[in-house]
Amino acid sequence: MSVMQKIISCGTRLDAVTGPLTRLARCSRGIHLGSTDSAARKLIPNEYEEPLIRTSIPGPKSKELLKNLDNITKNTGGVQYFVDFKESLGNYIVDVDGNRFLDTFMQISSIPVGYNHPAVLDALRDPEYLHIMVNRPALGVYPGSSFPTSLDRALLSVAPKGLKHVQPMMCGACSNENAIKQALLWYRREKRGGDPPTQEELETCLHGQEPGCPPYTVLSFDGSFHGRTIGCLSMTHSKPVFRLDIPSMDWPCAPFPRLQYPLEDFEAENRAEEDRCLKEVARQIEESRAKTRDVAALIIEPIQGEGGDNHASSYFFNQLQKICKEHGVAFIVDEVQTGCCTTGHFWAHEAWNLPEPPDFVVFSKKMLTGGYYFKEEFAVDGPSKVFNTWMGDPPKLLMLAAVVDVIKKEGLLDLARESGQHLMDGLQDLQAKYPQHLSRARGMGTHAAIDSIDGDTAAKIVRMARDKGVIMGACGKQSIRFRPSLVFQPHHVDIAIDTFNDVLSQL
Amino acid sequence: MSVMQKIISCGTRLDAVTGPLTRLARCSRGIHLGSTDSAARKLIPNEYEEPLIRTSIPGPKSKELLKNLDNITKNTGGVQYFVDFKESLGNYIVDVDGNRFLDTFMQISSIPVGYNHPAVLDALRDPEYLHIMVNRPALGVYPGSSFPTSLDRALLSVAPKGLKHVQPMMCGACSNENAIKQALLWYRREKRGGDPPTQEELETCLHGQEPGCPPYTVLSFDGSFHGRTIGCLSMTHSKPVFRLDIPSMDWPCAPFPRLQYPLEDFEAENRAEEDRCLKEVARQIEESRAKTRDVAALIIEPIQGEGGDNHASSYFFNQLQKICKEHGVAFIVDEVQTGCCTTGHFWAHEAWNLPEPPDFVVFSKKMLTGGYYFKEEFAVDGPSKVFNTWMGDPPKLLMLAAVVDVIKKEGLLDLARESGQHLMDGLQDLQAKYPQHLSRARGMGTHAAIDSIDGDTAAKIVRMARDKGVIMGACGKQSIRFRPSLVFQPHHVDIAIDTFNDVLSQL
Repeated sequence: MSVMQKIISCGTRLDAVTGPLTRLARCSRGIHLGSTDSAARKLIPNEYEEPLIRTSIPGPKSKELLKNLDNITKNTGGVQYFVDFKESLGNYIVDVDGNRFLDTFMQISSIPVGYNHPAVLDALRDPEYLHIMVNRPALGVYPGSSFPTSLDRALLSVAPKGLKHVQPMMCGACSNENAIKQALLWYRREKRGGDPPTQEELETCLHGQEPGCPPYTVLSFDGSFHGRTIGCLSMTHSKPVFRLDIPSMDWPCAPFPRLQYPLEDFEAENRAEEDRCLKEVARQIEESRAKTRDVAALIIEPIQGEGGDNHASSYFFNQLQKICKEHGVAFIVDEVQTGCCTTGHFWAHEAWNLPEPPDFVVFSKKMLTGGYYFKEEFAVDGPSKVFNTWMGDPPKLLMLAAVVDVIKKEGLLDLARESGQHLMDGLQDLQAKYPQHLSRARGMGTHAAIDSIDGDTAAKIVRMARDKGVIMGACGKQSIRFRPSLVFQPHHVDIAIDTFNDVLSQL
Repeated sequence: MSVMQKIISCGTRLDAVTGPLTRLARCSRGIHLGSTDSAARKLIPNEYEEPLIRTSIPGPKSKELLKNLDNITKNTGGVQYFVDFKESLGNYIVDVDGNRFLDTFMQISSIPVGYNHPAVLDALRDPEYLHIMVNRPALGVYPGSSFPTSLDRALLSVAPKGLKHVQPMMCGACSNENAIKQALLWYRREKRGGDPPTQEELETCLHGQEPGCPPYTVLSFDGSFHGRTIGCLSMTHSKPVFRLDIPSMDWPCAPFPRLQYPLEDFEAENRAEEDRCLKEVARQIEESRAKTRDVAALIIEPIQGEGGDNHASSYFFNQLQKICKEHGVAFIVDEVQTGCCTTGHFWAHEAWNLPEPPDFVVFSKKMLTGGYYFKEEFAVDGPSKVFNTWMGDPPKLLMLAAVVDVIKKEGLLDLARESGQHLMDGLQDLQAKYPQHLSRARGMGTHAAIDSIDGDTAAKIVRMARDKGVIMGACGKQSIRFRPSLVFQPHHVDIAIDTFNDVLSQL
């Protein structure tokens, strides 16, 4: 088969080629050609067939816009290119220079059902929506008539099993900040045992002094990322660039297990590693309490994202919850990146089969709105304790309700498992073929990653893949991560894996 | 003139009265009847003529919705009633029970040009907008093609004099958190004098330890409010309920002047009070530095809002900037509540005639998007230092661009001065008529307040006015505040003042 025949058999639309074009040969890996049932079904009508690269990246139009933007924000060091959001569709992002990428990173894991999903567009065409968008309420004081129904449709309908209460917020950092506040308020309330605050507490708190502002702490983990505000940064331990030069709360940090792969070959070692970390968690809680710096809450990601896609077992998380229960510490699961189906469970923690739900489950990103679910005993006990001007953003709830409908109607949770398995098979094939370049393929659903040999090589692979039309992400010290949308199908996996293969063969 | 004639002469639309109605007699104050030129011109087509109260507040439909909402969030202690945002228009908010209020509080000062402004609705009808709304970008990595233009139209076009750079964010708290971060990064950079961070700094910062996380501080003021995240709370000193039981950064706090009114009778006393506070600011900066807990930044509101509408003179702010310059401290002005014309200046600090702009000016609320302007020397020097997933919300920029057009086209800055003068005249009249109830009328533009005798009475006045159809706000220990939109005209002032008069006569 000639190269041109190969291209045509993979569905290149030659009529779309109108400019300078780096043609990408596809289907050449020769490892992973089996197509699946859902490959035939296209979830997004008129979705593009494949990437198309017309210019170097960033292209001339992006470069021009970058200059304009840098004149304004002076903070464009992370900008890749500028997007034509009108032309982007489904799994494909199109830039202003006409380059079209298969996007497996999706705005840092934040686009749930792909670009311009028709059902979400339709939701925004509802005339009611205009009034919701244009009159932004202070939801804690003057909520709109549709607010309870929106919460019900968008958030309660997908609540983690056993959790019936939810507080919307705006973004992930703000959700984590308020979840830990709510946990800290709970902890102090329990300590007071029903007594009101003292006059001294009321006076000292205004200046951040004890006893009004207690020296309570929140325990987090090495490698964690919970956001960039000062409170969240104090629980973030992944990369120096996040925290360097920023003052911090002095809060404890425990080790997160470092598992060895493949898991089935290292069962004993991994169990020992998890036990070591669990022991250290208990020790830190006890040590902090001995110093009257009580750990009021523990916060953890089901899979550490920024920290390098670090996983732990259900055993680990069950034991962690048990330790929290024993020590009266709130157990907060930060599902900002793992929530909303990507792991093959609506919430990643549902895979752990906990005897009872976490005390708080925090979300944002693909959920479009921030917020957190919580158990009733952790509710605030009075007004203006957990409060801010907006307390969320109703249009995002309306969009999320449409997204939830799509997820259910199209069976996207099952698809995340199916595409995830296909992706994992592909990564394992690549790892077997290029053991000098890749290791530790790991994932849950499509929430997957693989390690390169070092950070520079990981960045180079991501850059080369981008220049071939596939957007991947980097994370941790040397990992490459996949965070596709929920309309990422097995035939998209094939393109991603084929391109990855091309890159590796050229390293 | 009979009561009915009075009502008709004030414009009651009798045909609108279809349910049980507490009729409100207007124009009865007999103090302040002079109408002005702009009273004749109606800025919002078909705006209602006056409030209309049909039920007790909250009405039965609101009560039902409140029950539903409380089942979900367990945090509804502050909810007043539920809003029919479709029926609300201009200065009038309509609740789900058909009650219609003149709103001088506007979602905690956050609706710039009134409810359902036709020009803002039109902006959202632009088909381009749908693609901006439905595809939320990670603006620090993959911004949309229209992003630089949006920033230019919505934010640079109204930038404080001398400031050419702006970083959008999502809300006020997140803007203050990132502005202080950017200031702290600047401070450390200056200290390093061009040297790179040490290996020890890079390692220790991951655990929030020195020297990587320096013990630098941000100085704020008694009575201040800068937000509810842990970093912002550490700079907030207004009410115990905000801070009680929440751990805090140990940052310094200086006194904010407590001025005596009327200002013209207390010139010497007020100058002495301001000098006392300025001296204490300088002392705290020096003391902190001596303890190697350097004050890297000072943050202040032009008018303390939550703290009770506390003003200070241009002299005070000029001296403050001078102290910051002398000590190498970043001068951050938090205009989250004072920005966007409400004070009769687009930015309240423009009234101070500073020799150079503040180093940072933070905004949110009426600006719809959060963010901060900053001087070039305070820009970050690399990627991922000031960063988060979203870095703002493009649809809000699009709405703000429409708002800015309306402000310019309709001359709303001038109107804020005119309506503000009319409001201040009214408050001074009331204060003269009810000296036993009111004192310290003060304001800048329509950003006005007056003191009641205590907190309970202030709350009672606000509640009684609401039950008569006018929404006001409370703040500080015993103040009543006005935060109307920019389409608040003198004839609206008359209704507010008349109702206030009614309430006072019944106290």
